[in-house]
Amino acid sequence: MTICWCMITILFLLVTVRPENDDVTNGYLRFASGNKGFKVALFADLHFGENAWSDWGPDHDLSSIKVMSTVLDVERPDFVVYLGDLVTANNFMVQNASLYWDQAISPTRARNIPWASLFGNHDDAPFEWPIEWFSSSGIPQIVCPSACASGGDECVFEGTTRLELMRDEIRRNSLSYTRFGPRNLWPSVSNYVLTVVSPKSDRNTPVMFMYFLDSGGGSSPGVISAIQAEWFRNKSQEMNPDSSIQEIVFWHIPSKAYEKVAKEAAAGQTQCVGSMFEEGVAAQDAEMGMMKLLKKRPSVKAIFVGHNHGLDWCCPYEKMWLCYARHTGYGGYGTWARGARILEITDEPFSLKSWIRMENGTLHSEVVLSN
Amino acid sequence: MTICWCMITILFLLVTVRPENDDVTNGYLRFASGNKGFKVALFADLHFGENAWSDWGPDHDLSSIKVMSTVLDVERPDFVVYLGDLVTANNFMVQNASLYWDQAISPTRARNIPWASLFGNHDDAPFEWPIEWFSSSGIPQIVCPSACASGGDECVFEGTTRLELMRDEIRRNSLSYTRFGPRNLWPSVSNYVLTVVSPKSDRNTPVMFMYFLDSGGGSSPGVISAIQAEWFRNKSQEMNPDSSIQEIVFWHIPSKAYEKVAKEAAAGQTQCVGSMFEEGVAAQDAEMGMMKLLKKRPSVKAIFVGHNHGLDWCCPYEKMWLCYARHTGYGGYGTWARGARILEITDEPFSLKSWIRMENGTLHSEVVLSN
Repeated sequence: MTICWCMITILFLLVTVRPENDDVTNGYLRFASGNKGFKVALFADLHFGENAWSDWGPDHDLSSIKVMSTVLDVERPDFVVYLGDLVTANNFMVQNASLYWDQAISPTRARNIPWASLFGNHDDAPFEWPIEWFSSSGIPQIVCPSACASGGDECVFEGTTRLELMRDEIRRNSLSYTRFGPRNLWPSVSNYVLTVVSPKSDRNTPVMFMYFLDSGGGSSPGVISAIQAEWFRNKSQEMNPDSSIQEIVFWHIPSKAYEKVAKEAAAGQTQCVGSMFEEGVAAQDAEMGMMKLLKKRPSVKAIFVGHNHGLDWCCPYEKMWLCYARHTGYGGYGTWARGARILEITDEPFSLKSWIRMENGTLHSEVVLSN
Repeated sequence: MTICWCMITILFLLVTVRPENDDVTNGYLRFASGNKGFKVALFADLHFGENAWSDWGPDHDLSSIKVMSTVLDVERPDFVVYLGDLVTANNFMVQNASLYWDQAISPTRARNIPWASLFGNHDDAPFEWPIEWFSSSGIPQIVCPSACASGGDECVFEGTTRLELMRDEIRRNSLSYTRFGPRNLWPSVSNYVLTVVSPKSDRNTPVMFMYFLDSGGGSSPGVISAIQAEWFRNKSQEMNPDSSIQEIVFWHIPSKAYEKVAKEAAAGQTQCVGSMFEEGVAAQDAEMGMMKLLKKRPSVKAIFVGHNHGLDWCCPYEKMWLCYARHTGYGGYGTWARGARILEITDEPFSLKSWIRMENGTLHSEVVLSN
């Protein structure tokens, strides 16, 4: 830990505050001029910041940046969704996780591509002291990173709160579409909706709505609460009262419905599209009504989650698709090849297609999710 | 949550800073004038601050104060040891746990009795959101306690650090013998030694040494580290080089040796003294050398722990005793009758006796631990 985090933090704070942008303010995402399609890359489970006291942590982060760079350069998406677990906060001795969070979004920002992020279960977790450190005579790593850390050099790494992480991202980035959710949903924070608007209309006609939800974990239970479901019900009713515009939904931890569909797939009762079926579904702690709403609402076509690094499938479920992204980061468990799920939305006629782009540039698991 | 925590905090900060006291500075505990014995009451697992959003939390704290008051008035000890888990920080939405910590020490302070405290696994834990709160439409309890809380009203309750808790106790109380441990032992904090000195000597001749250790838990693994053992080895060698003065040791989470002795007791291979054998030993996560040192050192006569509310025994182990205190608080699991272990040290001839004083005033489990 030879780097002075204090100095880095100060430099970091000097980054300019973002200018106003009406599309960001309104949550409008526009097709690039002349394009028929609007392309979204999903970066899931990057897990930046692991094991900074050894060599492989920072090395992994460099590899993750390379994966994202490859995907961005090959696919040239119009938008990126950071699908949670951008950082492994329980694994670093840093007082402000925004430092690593910022690294995770840097390849997208460097290419001038806008993005939105939501929270996983590792992003605001407090540091977990490795028990091995207590068995040797002395813990050399307990050299506090900086004497200017708050409260002196007490080695307290309580985790950076969701609100702080989000505030830092929004304040410092004009390309960020991320937003604080309604206050009455807290401690669940990343709950918001963005609108993909028609390329041919001056009147911001919606082509599709993208809902972002915070599935908890870390500082609170890993669930989508009843009040979040209620928020979705009201919001979707308000924005799309007749369900005429298609909707997709993003969050981090799979709902219990993913367990059900995985069982059906294993029993050959449903046809999934994907290349990895390497582990069991690690679902939310409880189902509190969100899936019931999504099942009933005709315009909801697909849900996208991360969390399970060994799964990358899309399986049909009721009238929609339950999809995993693809483990993008070198951080986090698992050594399966990294990649990113891509979505492509076309207008007139509407279609929603998806595939997975790998770190070596290859492509697989193409699927039409709606048309 | 109608109380304004902000105002309470401000009032709390106005409490006067403690005056200098040579005995506190030197860690000397003196027999009261004319007394042949020096008496210590152990208050274990008070668990203040549970469920402040319902009635029974504060009610339990009042009951705990009553238990302590009874014990203090019946026994009239010279000193009190707070044996960890003074508060259940994972169970309250308060930004500074010192508020509850202060309630826990209030009966002792009110009687002008000095004390020392050490940490349990609940004292610095972050708030755990009850999952039930997420199943109803809205979480009425997420009304932030105060608009003056740091970071606005973001409902962040990360747990008060061990260092903050200890700093608050020491700064505000002239009767507190608690101290920060050596910095190289952090994140393990409450590691220090106090000396019971001879009643007949002007020269501060030691009668017994009392070691306090932090067995972790909460923000770090529940262990006594190798470096803490090393600290004990050096400190005891320095203060008592020929092992001629007897020593006792306090910490919160039982070591693995307690499991061993409990098995022997259950098999009838050893004779324990106690009234409660109601649960299994919940031991530290690992043994990292402390017990080996204590077993070898002839002057160590007994260890006292809390943590298991359903156990109150003392069992012989090698050449010493492994003892539980007695669950003192109405907070924490278990409905067994509350009480406190008492220790009595006499000089010329030296003896160390113990018994348990119950909340109804009765006494049981008398045992001679050393003479």
